[in-house]
Amino acid sequence: MAEVNQEALYRIFTIPEAPDSTLGKIEKHLSENLMGFLGEHIVAREKPLQEIERDFEQANIPEDPQFVSEHTEFLLNKLVAHSVHTASPKFIGHMTSALPYFLLPLAKLMVGLNQNLVKIETSKAFTPLERNVIGMLHHLVYQQDAGFYNRWMHSAQHSLGAFCSGGTVANMTALWVARNRLLKPDGDFAGIAAEGLAAGLAHYGYKKLVVLVSERGHYSLAKAADVLGIGRRNLVSVATDENNRIKVDALRQACEKVQQEGGRVLAIIGVAGTTETGHIDPLAEMADIARDYDTHFHVDAAWGGATLLSNQHRGLLNGIEHADSVTIDAHKQMYVPMGAGMVLFKNPSLVKAIEHHAEYIIRQGSKDLGSHSMEGSRAGMAMMVFSAMHVIGRRGYELLINNSIEKARYFADLIRAQDDFEVITEPELCLLTYRFVPKKVKQALAGANQEQVERLTPHLNALTRYVQKRQRESGRSFVSRTKLTPAQYYHEPSVVFRVVLANPLTTEAMLQEIIQEQREIAEKATSLRGALHTEMRELGMIVSDH
Amino acid sequence: MAEVNQEALYRIFTIPEAPDSTLGKIEKHLSENLMGFLGEHIVAREKPLQEIERDFEQANIPEDPQFVSEHTEFLLNKLVAHSVHTASPKFIGHMTSALPYFLLPLAKLMVGLNQNLVKIETSKAFTPLERNVIGMLHHLVYQQDAGFYNRWMHSAQHSLGAFCSGGTVANMTALWVARNRLLKPDGDFAGIAAEGLAAGLAHYGYKKLVVLVSERGHYSLAKAADVLGIGRRNLVSVATDENNRIKVDALRQACEKVQQEGGRVLAIIGVAGTTETGHIDPLAEMADIARDYDTHFHVDAAWGGATLLSNQHRGLLNGIEHADSVTIDAHKQMYVPMGAGMVLFKNPSLVKAIEHHAEYIIRQGSKDLGSHSMEGSRAGMAMMVFSAMHVIGRRGYELLINNSIEKARYFADLIRAQDDFEVITEPELCLLTYRFVPKKVKQALAGANQEQVERLTPHLNALTRYVQKRQRESGRSFVSRTKLTPAQYYHEPSVVFRVVLANPLTTEAMLQEIIQEQREIAEKATSLRGALHTEMRELGMIVSDH
Repeated sequence: MAEVNQEALYRIFTIPEAPDSTLGKIEKHLSENLMGFLGEHIVAREKPLQEIERDFEQANIPEDPQFVSEHTEFLLNKLVAHSVHTASPKFIGHMTSALPYFLLPLAKLMVGLNQNLVKIETSKAFTPLERNVIGMLHHLVYQQDAGFYNRWMHSAQHSLGAFCSGGTVANMTALWVARNRLLKPDGDFAGIAAEGLAAGLAHYGYKKLVVLVSERGHYSLAKAADVLGIGRRNLVSVATDENNRIKVDALRQACEKVQQEGGRVLAIIGVAGTTETGHIDPLAEMADIARDYDTHFHVDAAWGGATLLSNQHRGLLNGIEHADSVTIDAHKQMYVPMGAGMVLFKNPSLVKAIEHHAEYIIRQGSKDLGSHSMEGSRAGMAMMVFSAMHVIGRRGYELLINNSIEKARYFADLIRAQDDFEVITEPELCLLTYRFVPKKVKQALAGANQEQVERLTPHLNALTRYVQKRQRESGRSFVSRTKLTPAQYYHEPSVVFRVVLANPLTTEAMLQEIIQEQREIAEKATSLRGALHTEMRELGMIVSDH
Repeated sequence: MAEVNQEALYRIFTIPEAPDSTLGKIEKHLSENLMGFLGEHIVAREKPLQEIERDFEQANIPEDPQFVSEHTEFLLNKLVAHSVHTASPKFIGHMTSALPYFLLPLAKLMVGLNQNLVKIETSKAFTPLERNVIGMLHHLVYQQDAGFYNRWMHSAQHSLGAFCSGGTVANMTALWVARNRLLKPDGDFAGIAAEGLAAGLAHYGYKKLVVLVSERGHYSLAKAADVLGIGRRNLVSVATDENNRIKVDALRQACEKVQQEGGRVLAIIGVAGTTETGHIDPLAEMADIARDYDTHFHVDAAWGGATLLSNQHRGLLNGIEHADSVTIDAHKQMYVPMGAGMVLFKNPSLVKAIEHHAEYIIRQGSKDLGSHSMEGSRAGMAMMVFSAMHVIGRRGYELLINNSIEKARYFADLIRAQDDFEVITEPELCLLTYRFVPKKVKQALAGANQEQVERLTPHLNALTRYVQKRQRESGRSFVSRTKLTPAQYYHEPSVVFRVVLANPLTTEAMLQEIIQEQREIAEKATSLRGALHTEMRELGMIVSDH
């Protein structure tokens, strides 16, 4: 037990950890060999969550201080050991990848500076830096000329966007702006910001506001519809084609229907890189529809937006430049640590709709970033994005992104070449879905009718779930899973493996190992396979057992 | 210019910065002597913002990569140099203080692990850890028994709170929960989350929802009222007494008025440590009123909540245990880096009102933290709070908090002892406001009538603004300023200095220096003082010039 007295407390604020202390050694290890540190300290084999919880069940804040070394040992054995090795090249199930080394010491610098970006008084140069970062991303999307950025990037009354903790807040901010602009002050009506949503609907004579997005839209949009008072039911899912892209005819019909019902389309949302399949909506066509219905066009490019950094592939996002607002997460394909979301606004005046002030900070006319953001106090994460863009450079990012897409194409080819795996959704960016299907089932599925697919799919789903779970638990590699409704299988809800190939350290050999491991796990699932076999026999899809 | 090729890119993900590189040296300096590093690299004298902006005006993402060393030099000279020395013991104007040393290497560890707390699959042990941290803060506020925490802390369907990027999101989350609970599903009505706010008001027959808070409430509450569709006008400010505490009679009357107008009180918000004056509302009496009107009682203890760690002072927050929800920021008086807000819920089932799921994560029945949070992907900041609570301990925190309050009392006494300064609001916690008033004015103000106060105050306001701005620019010390309506001065809007004395390294000698510096600046403000003098003469408050 450490001492509790003035002197001891003063020390923790003034005396650094010694280099040979436990924490000093960890820090050295992290600096010298991050991957080695993670590989050594994170236990591969999964410990049941209930057991981990036992180390985190004391609700009392400890009375007495603990020595830093002792506490660090606890963290190593109980927390780090049972963390997820998100930087591992075989952890390809989610959008978290490896980080460039230089960001680690820079992150420490950022934390040490402990700036608060809500206001100039606690951030100074960090405010222009963050505005610069937002400006650079704005330029990436909208490519305005230098005069535009000279005029607006550092203007107190304007913002080219807002830095957020993540894509969820970014999407929410975009819809907040759209909502407040639609129900703006008008005559006696002081605007929704002042009078509230119900008064706004009444004033403008709308029965409801509706947001339209493809059925592949991110769940944060439903959350935003809830938070903003619009209602989850009024986030209407529009059907997608066989490539998971919104059907523009269906979108237009949905807009018509809203009008016929006395509602108002608040926003149309294009998805640039769906979370589950990585596909990109036909943004240019959606922009046309948004114009026809005089509605806000938002593009959720949280994951796929970084593709704009690749001259080779940025055409995939054609039309994004017509969006009124765009969400991009730098902590996804820009290789920045967690906590770097952004929303960009085409028109620098849009943020007027959400402007707010207070007496002691974010005063009228100040350049305080807090006057146009949903969040209040925030750290200087923008520095991570700024540094990554400078040290990697656009050309560096282009290489990273092109490589990821090529790797996904390689993996799709590899899967197709197996007689017991099948690609479910093709990669457009570096994301694809697939599943294991025993050889005989794969052959039989090729010509199966709807009833057969309906009866076989639940068994295949159980098998996919089983393999995904066992593979995760074994700790050697990780793919995620989701449920899709593939057109080729009569839209039957199908569980699939989902991989995101953004980690530059993932090799082709590793991808081969991953499917081999899945095959081996599947082979051991005898009862699930037995049930599948029985079902096939009952369906008349297997005549003999030979 | 650095190279752009596969090999070079691979290196930034695999080869650490050498210890003798620019960044390596910075890291060493940070580790060995943070205060020295900050003191050495942050330029004291303020550079005009427009000049700083010139270093951050290139909206093009650079095509070519920059060497890390070169980029680091840029950061040092252009960003760090013109950052704010928030850890300085003479930076007493805002709620940001010095950080304990051990948190720096731990922050690097956190960033290196790069967990995403939205789901178990990308956070594993960090999920139980975060639930533990929320549980510890819940216990600090509500002091339930061990059985309570055993039952609820790790329950998939429940949450004792939510970890947020800051107090703003925490307050917003609390009101979101309150709103969705009030307009819950009922018969044919599927609830506000599904159907939206207007449908909810119509179903329940309320003309409007109203949130009541004292006129000292934080600006984030107005923002929350906007975002949630309630409307800023429906966040009603209730008058405060001479100590900036809400008048309970006025609160009760306000509740009556809402009902008479056909509205519904959505929530009553108590402030535990107002941002501008540090005072605490009479929480127990407010809880009674909330019960009488069957409304949600939220306490915004973003800043003052840490006072609960002091057995000597926690009585100041009596009644907080009756709150349905409480906001606490660990990045304020808990000495954790920026980005650690929390909202706590007395009843672990309250979060049902905002629960949401998706196919690929936060599935039904999972323990994924993302199902009960406003934000999506989030970093493992909870680890910073966990470690600080263990290494400092409750007794350590008590010492820190008691010392801060004593320091504030010392400073108030010091100001009172000057014949040219006056305390405007007394410290209840470690926050107080005061101003410089030339000796003759101070004497004259003692017996001044309302007209005299009304005419003198604008001149005093100008002087206070001038001194605050010059002192900030000189860079030796920083106090903030705000505008209050002090009862002792006929509620005339008065600009005041505002100080928060939470930095353990701030000494009494420094406080003496700070007011001496203010006095010297004020003495040079000859034209402002001349105008004040003329006004006094015209008011007949000075008979002769001797």
